[in-house]
Amino acid sequence: MIYLDFNRTTPLAPSVLEAMQPYWSTHYMLPGQEHAHAHAVGEALEGARESIAAMAGCESFEIVFTSGGTEANNLAILGLLGAAEPGHVLVSQLEHESVLGPLSGLPRRDPRWTIETIPCAPSGIISPLKVEAMLRADTRLVCLQGANAIVGTIQPVREVADRCHNRGICVHCDATQMFGKVPVDVKHLRADTVAISGHKFYGPKGSGAIYVRRGLQLDPITFGEPREMGLRPGAENIPGCIGLGAAASLAERYCVEANDQLAELRDHFVDHLSEQLPTPPLVLCEASPRLPNTVALELPGDARRIHDSARELALATAQAHSPPDEFTRSLRAIGRSDSQIGRTLRVSLGWTTSNEQVERAASLIAEAFDS
Amino acid sequence: MIYLDFNRTTPLAPSVLEAMQPYWSTHYMLPGQEHAHAHAVGEALEGARESIAAMAGCESFEIVFTSGGTEANNLAILGLLGAAEPGHVLVSQLEHESVLGPLSGLPRRDPRWTIETIPCAPSGIISPLKVEAMLRADTRLVCLQGANAIVGTIQPVREVADRCHNRGICVHCDATQMFGKVPVDVKHLRADTVAISGHKFYGPKGSGAIYVRRGLQLDPITFGEPREMGLRPGAENIPGCIGLGAAASLAERYCVEANDQLAELRDHFVDHLSEQLPTPPLVLCEASPRLPNTVALELPGDARRIHDSARELALATAQAHSPPDEFTRSLRAIGRSDSQIGRTLRVSLGWTTSNEQVERAASLIAEAFDS
Repeated sequence: MIYLDFNRTTPLAPSVLEAMQPYWSTHYMLPGQEHAHAHAVGEALEGARESIAAMAGCESFEIVFTSGGTEANNLAILGLLGAAEPGHVLVSQLEHESVLGPLSGLPRRDPRWTIETIPCAPSGIISPLKVEAMLRADTRLVCLQGANAIVGTIQPVREVADRCHNRGICVHCDATQMFGKVPVDVKHLRADTVAISGHKFYGPKGSGAIYVRRGLQLDPITFGEPREMGLRPGAENIPGCIGLGAAASLAERYCVEANDQLAELRDHFVDHLSEQLPTPPLVLCEASPRLPNTVALELPGDARRIHDSARELALATAQAHSPPDEFTRSLRAIGRSDSQIGRTLRVSLGWTTSNEQVERAASLIAEAFDS
Repeated sequence: MIYLDFNRTTPLAPSVLEAMQPYWSTHYMLPGQEHAHAHAVGEALEGARESIAAMAGCESFEIVFTSGGTEANNLAILGLLGAAEPGHVLVSQLEHESVLGPLSGLPRRDPRWTIETIPCAPSGIISPLKVEAMLRADTRLVCLQGANAIVGTIQPVREVADRCHNRGICVHCDATQMFGKVPVDVKHLRADTVAISGHKFYGPKGSGAIYVRRGLQLDPITFGEPREMGLRPGAENIPGCIGLGAAASLAERYCVEANDQLAELRDHFVDHLSEQLPTPPLVLCEASPRLPNTVALELPGDARRIHDSARELALATAQAHSPPDEFTRSLRAIGRSDSQIGRTLRVSLGWTTSNEQVERAASLIAEAFDS
C-alpha cells in the first residue's frame, strides 16, 4: 500500500507505542488511587500534559485531555457557549463537522442563537477584514480552523483573533490539522480555545486535548467525578494521554525538519504527475500559505476511478454521500463546481512517505487516466 | 504490591493487549477510508461489537462505543432525557457520580425537571416496591446501578424495570461494576440502556459502550461526522474498541469459573483477617446478593492507617474530601455513620489475585491494628 492519506489518520509512531506500553498492564493504576504506584502514574500524566504544553507554547494547566479532536471541538464550543448569554456566532465555511455540528443545534434549543457562516475566498483563505465586518455587538464566538484538511490552506487566526479580542469576542481554533504539521504556538495564534487530535500526528486514536486560555470560563458537557480542571470527568485514559504527550514531543523535535522534506516530496509528486498527464493537473489554492504535506489536485477525469484501477493507493476523493462531507464542502467553499470536485483528489503525505512512493503514486494516477 | 482494588481499575489482560497491538501502527486506517485495508479495519470493529453483544446478550446494532463508562452514563441519560419532555426522574442513592452528575444539572437548565432520590435499605438493596411507590405520571426515567462498587450489592434491576415498563417508563442501568464480574444478560436485566466500562474488566482505559434497546430514541450529546448509529461522532478509537471486544470475549469465557474462585478467595481473606483481629470485622451487607470479588469491612480502628503501615497494599478507604465520594456516599446510603465509614475498607479481588496475596494482606491489615 502507498498511503497518501495522512490528513485522515496516521499510524502510531513506534516511539509513541513504546511510551504507552508500560501503562496498560504494569503501571495500570489511576492517579486518584491511594498508593505510591498510583502517584507515579499521576506524575507521568502531568509529564505528558507538560509535553503538550511545550509543543503548544502554553502552561500545562491550560491543557485539558479529551477522547479526541471531535470531543475537543465540542467541549470548547459548547463549553464556552454554555457559559455565555445566547447571541451570535460566526463560523468559517471551511470548518469540520465537529465544529459545525455543535453550533447547528444551538438555535433549535434556544432561538436567541444565530449562527452565521463566514464565506471563503477562492484562495482558500478567510479574510480577517471580512470577519471584522461581520462581527456584531452580540457576537459571542468566532470559529476559525488552523488549516484546512483538503486544500491545506493555513488561516490567519491571529489576525482574526486580534480583531475579535478588541471587541471582547472569543475565538475557537480547530487546529487538529495543524498540530504536528507546522509549528503551532497558541500564544501567537491568540485563539482562546484550540483543539488538538492525537491520531492526526502519529499519536493514539482516542486521544486529544484542548488548550483553554488561562482564566477562561468553560462549562463541562459531561459530568461525573471531577477531573481535568473540572472540565472532563471519567477515569483518565492514561496510555492515551501518555501517547499524546510522546507524539507532542516528537512533533516538537522533528516537525520543522520534516516539513522541508514533505514540501519537497509534495512538489516532486506534482511535477512527476504533471509530466505524465496530457493536461497538467490544477493545484488548488497554490498561491496561498499551505500545509507542506497537503495538495488538492484537479484532474482531467473522474478522480474516483483511481480507487478501482490503483488499488495499492490510499488517498482521498469526494464521497457521493449526503449531506456533503468535509471534502465536498471545502471545495465548494473555494468555488469549485460539483463536476470539478468529482475530478479532485487530495494527497496528504507523512513522515514515512518516500520519494519512490510519490513517484510510483504519480505513475499509477497517470495510468488510471490513460486507460 | 498486593493489588486489591480491582473495582477501581484493572490491568489490561495480556490477550487483550495482543488483540489491540496490530491496530496501532499496522492496521491504522479508519473504516470510512476508501481502501481495502480500511474496509478490513471496519470489519474488525464490527467483530468487536459482536463480541460485546454476545457477552451482553443483545444484537450488535444495540451496542454503541464510547470513550468509557462516564461517557456511557452521560450519553444514555442525557441522550434519553434530551429526547423527552421535562418531568420527573428517580435515581438510586447508590449511584456513581457519572449518573448523578448529568441528572443534577437538569433542573438548573429547565425547572420543570425534578430529580428524586430512591433511598436504600441497610441491606444495600434498593426495594422494587419502594421504587414503584415513588413512580409518578410524569416519571421519565429511573436510574439503578447493576452492582455497587463499594459494598458489592447486586440490585434487582429486572424487578424494577418490569414495574417501570408497565407504566411506559425507561430504566438506565449503570452496569460498569457488573460486566465481567458476573454474567449480565441485558435482555434479562430489561433495562433500556446499560453502561459498560472497559477498564473495569481487563479491557483498555478509554473504552466503553452503551447497550441501547432496539427502537429507543436517544439524542447525541456531541456532534460531528455521524458514527455509531448517529449517537457518537469522531474517528473511532479502533484499538480501544478491539480491546473492549477482546475483554468481552474473555469475560464471556471465564467469568463464571473465575467467580467461584473469587468468592472463595474473598471468604478466605475475611476468615483469615477475623482470626487475627481481637474483634472480628463487620462484613457489610453480608446477607445480600453481592459481587463475588468485593467485600466492605468495618474494622476496630481508622482504616486509613493501613495506607501508612502497609505500603505494599492497594485497597480503598474513605477519602476525606468534599463533596463526599462514592465510597462515603454508598456507606452513608446503607446507614453507616461517618465514624464507621472512617473504619471501613473495601477489598476488591481480581483474576490475578492469589491465595498467598489475600493471606498476606489479611496479616498486614491485622498488624496495622496491632500497632
